[in-house]
Amino acid sequence: MFMEIGNFLNKRLSELGIKHIFGVPGDFNLSYLEQIETDSKIEFIGNCNELNAAYAADGYARINGFSALATTYGVGDLSAINGIAGAYTENVPLIHISGIPPLHAVTQGALIHHTLVDGNYDNIMNCMREFTVAQTRLTPANAASEIDRVLRQCALERRPVHIQLPSDITHVKIQIDDQPLCLERPVSDPEILEQAVDELFKCLSQAKKPALLIDNEADIFNVTTLLAELSAKTGISYACLPTAKNIMDESSPHYAGVYVGAASQLSVRNLIECSDCLIGIGARFTDIGTGMFSHKINKDSYIEIKRYEVNTARKNFPGIEIGELLTALNLRVTAKKSLKPTLETPATERIQVSEHQKLSHEILWKYIGNFFKADDVILGEVGTSNTALSGLRLPVTAKYICQPIWGSIGYTLPALLGSLLAAPKRRQILFIGDGSLQLTVQELSTIIRYGLKPIIFVLNNGGYTIERLILGENASYNDIQNWKYTELVQVFNGKEKYQTCMVETAGQLKNALDQVGAYDGLSLIELKLPAMDAPVSLLKFADVVARYDYGNFGYQKLKTEQHYVECKNAISF
Amino acid sequence: MFMEIGNFLNKRLSELGIKHIFGVPGDFNLSYLEQIETDSKIEFIGNCNELNAAYAADGYARINGFSALATTYGVGDLSAINGIAGAYTENVPLIHISGIPPLHAVTQGALIHHTLVDGNYDNIMNCMREFTVAQTRLTPANAASEIDRVLRQCALERRPVHIQLPSDITHVKIQIDDQPLCLERPVSDPEILEQAVDELFKCLSQAKKPALLIDNEADIFNVTTLLAELSAKTGISYACLPTAKNIMDESSPHYAGVYVGAASQLSVRNLIECSDCLIGIGARFTDIGTGMFSHKINKDSYIEIKRYEVNTARKNFPGIEIGELLTALNLRVTAKKSLKPTLETPATERIQVSEHQKLSHEILWKYIGNFFKADDVILGEVGTSNTALSGLRLPVTAKYICQPIWGSIGYTLPALLGSLLAAPKRRQILFIGDGSLQLTVQELSTIIRYGLKPIIFVLNNGGYTIERLILGENASYNDIQNWKYTELVQVFNGKEKYQTCMVETAGQLKNALDQVGAYDGLSLIELKLPAMDAPVSLLKFADVVARYDYGNFGYQKLKTEQHYVECKNAISF
Repeated sequence: MFMEIGNFLNKRLSELGIKHIFGVPGDFNLSYLEQIETDSKIEFIGNCNELNAAYAADGYARINGFSALATTYGVGDLSAINGIAGAYTENVPLIHISGIPPLHAVTQGALIHHTLVDGNYDNIMNCMREFTVAQTRLTPANAASEIDRVLRQCALERRPVHIQLPSDITHVKIQIDDQPLCLERPVSDPEILEQAVDELFKCLSQAKKPALLIDNEADIFNVTTLLAELSAKTGISYACLPTAKNIMDESSPHYAGVYVGAASQLSVRNLIECSDCLIGIGARFTDIGTGMFSHKINKDSYIEIKRYEVNTARKNFPGIEIGELLTALNLRVTAKKSLKPTLETPATERIQVSEHQKLSHEILWKYIGNFFKADDVILGEVGTSNTALSGLRLPVTAKYICQPIWGSIGYTLPALLGSLLAAPKRRQILFIGDGSLQLTVQELSTIIRYGLKPIIFVLNNGGYTIERLILGENASYNDIQNWKYTELVQVFNGKEKYQTCMVETAGQLKNALDQVGAYDGLSLIELKLPAMDAPVSLLKFADVVARYDYGNFGYQKLKTEQHYVECKNAISF
Repeated sequence: MFMEIGNFLNKRLSELGIKHIFGVPGDFNLSYLEQIETDSKIEFIGNCNELNAAYAADGYARINGFSALATTYGVGDLSAINGIAGAYTENVPLIHISGIPPLHAVTQGALIHHTLVDGNYDNIMNCMREFTVAQTRLTPANAASEIDRVLRQCALERRPVHIQLPSDITHVKIQIDDQPLCLERPVSDPEILEQAVDELFKCLSQAKKPALLIDNEADIFNVTTLLAELSAKTGISYACLPTAKNIMDESSPHYAGVYVGAASQLSVRNLIECSDCLIGIGARFTDIGTGMFSHKINKDSYIEIKRYEVNTARKNFPGIEIGELLTALNLRVTAKKSLKPTLETPATERIQVSEHQKLSHEILWKYIGNFFKADDVILGEVGTSNTALSGLRLPVTAKYICQPIWGSIGYTLPALLGSLLAAPKRRQILFIGDGSLQLTVQELSTIIRYGLKPIIFVLNNGGYTIERLILGENASYNDIQNWKYTELVQVFNGKEKYQTCMVETAGQLKNALDQVGAYDGLSLIELKLPAMDAPVSLLKFADVVARYDYGNFGYQKLKTEQHYVECKNAISF
């Protein structure tokens, strides 16, 4: 059958479950946007700028599975690229569709605005190649096959792809396959799979202290249920890296806690570092995720399971799909009596704070810990919010969204727009600092425009507290302008019901949470916090980070070796 | 002598006349920011995000000569890259200093946040290479020579450069040359220079209708005075491309007007297209700048003068520096009786409009034309504002700032912050649409924070009017949320004196302009304009653009050939 190129692309996006496309109109994507406008299955969400659109698409994909972003060539693409790099780092399948100048102009190297007017049409693609797993420039001749190739790669690697759609060919009809896109994953070589399962089974059987160390890849490649089954059947305890917050059941008796190298709780550290058969699931040992490389993994007994690869100290098993592997392993293992739970379920803490006490992080997170409900979507901006939320036990069915590795500040507010559109019926709660909010504030307007109803906590500590903790406690470069945050909704012209308030004491916090819990509308709560207050773990950690980043010969030279030893020892997540 | 690397870099920046560095603090630039904080000659200007910081640096350099931008690795760099690409396209010498992870981590390929945690530390550099004329990663061994090499290239090409400064070496002392940076430009081969001058002199002498076509490069490489002298001495008339607004004296009797191909006034078109010796000064024939490639340049009699190159139809003269060439030519030519002025100085128009008339573009720009004063800095956002301002005659000493080729919307508000800091004593006036303002609105907060006092006109036409004119007049993708723009200053917490007002009629506009003229403080005037109103030239031009970009087979197929002919004929700048 024949179909216009843009409509065919939209058909494929619909097959992937995409119902919203984020972006900004521009000179070279208007005819494609017309095709979205007339498509009954996909809605265009107009963002205030392209970086915010990319972040929104990222947040959307984390709940919806896939997302799409539409920009215009050059200016739009480069505005969005930081968001695309973030999606690459954090394994988010985001489909970037760039409306580029007409094919005849590109072919001739015409001097068009939104380019460097030097005839070069490769520079944007060269940049995108660094942060996407497949790229293509569509033509009428290649569109039918290229769209499918690129989307398959996106699904397989669950990372962003880049599609250049020339402005003049959107409405050209091409002959297409009328079958839906086949997304079957490549299956493993049965023989190597069997050998891998044998090897794992043998290692587990012989081990006295087996353990699982789980990273976010388990969620991305959809094996958390298989891992829970493995743990339940065999009684093996598991710990998660900080980048895998709440992807496994944290109330399970087999859940040991978060492993952050030397900054872990002692029981978690013992489990992981003293294991004689540690199985890492997509584990990435990053600076922040390991307390600045303080992790100690015994390489001789470490088994690494990646999406399509298993490595032991002695053997490599290529092409083994993680889902197939775990399914086969679960059939092989025999039920063992459950090991003793390694972590006690914490008793619900009764909060004992005077109502008049000034708000602090210590008080704040005690209350917040009791505020969450099942199925909440919780977003934590990197810095104080993410650090504090990492230490809380969240409801099993809650979804936690953060960008812990790429760590681009300002990410969560637009990501919230995306997650709200992906799951409009779930309660969604954002924690963001004042410094981070300022980077992407205009996307609050889009949240308002589409009548969405999140709960937003703005932690106002008068600047970049996370940076003050590392360097420049009183430096002016860590200051920001103090806005009237509670008036933002009014300025962005909210027509729907909303409420805002400012919280300075424990009593006001309690009241605000009571109010918000029963409210059907957007809520924005400004939390006034001291400039140098932070979760305890962060206070100590910052000095260790500072030393790693800035060495001993700059500002750090004033501090003693003893100081760092004390800091390291005092960190505990 | 010995000096810390960061301090040496700052010394060099000071030598280039840089007094402010724009940027955002981040994990890997804090120790460098400490060195700025303690430097008495340079002040750090904290922006709300990195793209805005890049735009601000761009605006600053356009008045100050050079500018600097400080970001943190990965997230900050990629957020800023669109602004850097814009500076490349528009020949703005911007020095980008990225604080990158410590050298020991980079060397080891350590898995650090703000990277893709794959050990790759080349991807950011690869991207920056596309949009900068020199790049370097500093080490203690290369810093003394590399800083100077890169800054020299920046000065020579007047385009951005990229410097990676590892976080742990900022305070390492290196041995440096205590002489100031030598920025002498390479001189021309005297023999080739003489031949080039001979050739030009011969061509000019034989020509009956010589003319100059001047582009922005004349301003960038500082030869506007030499060109004015050449014109005055020989009586040769000159036209400017739209990208060279107000760089030459537009009240000179030798100024013919703006050349935009078929969209030019007839007298300008005749001058350029019928010339038998047309000298182009850095002329770039871009889509928008030529009425969609409707220019007709006689190649046989065209002489192209670039920064270091002269080309005639028959000969190429390599390595001829434009300033030397024009100086020598001016000595050679003999004074001629001035040719008849090609353009009459327009009489000051008396505005005859009823006070109650609704505001429109026609009314607006009549008033604005009389509002400007000598030495004003005027910023026009691409779209309706720039189009209208291009058609006005500005005071000779006024500086006009726009980003006509790269054309990234939202550019001018942060650029205004930069130009204000570069020239705090000049009156500065911004014209920006509501759609563009929303992309970068938070930088208004930085303008407020530093107590600056611009006049800001927000043209509120309820969305992306420039796009509506091209495609999607009533499409929802061209809609935006309607903010309460006049309340923004209040929310961003302005402490200094400011005024805001909303203008809906001709009478209100007149009053507002009277008020603003006499006011010492920030002014924000919201101008309510109909959604499909625009300067006349733009209304017609949009259909021609739409046809070029979207061809005849998409939305354009409904329009007849005759329609485009009518549009093309009706365009006049």
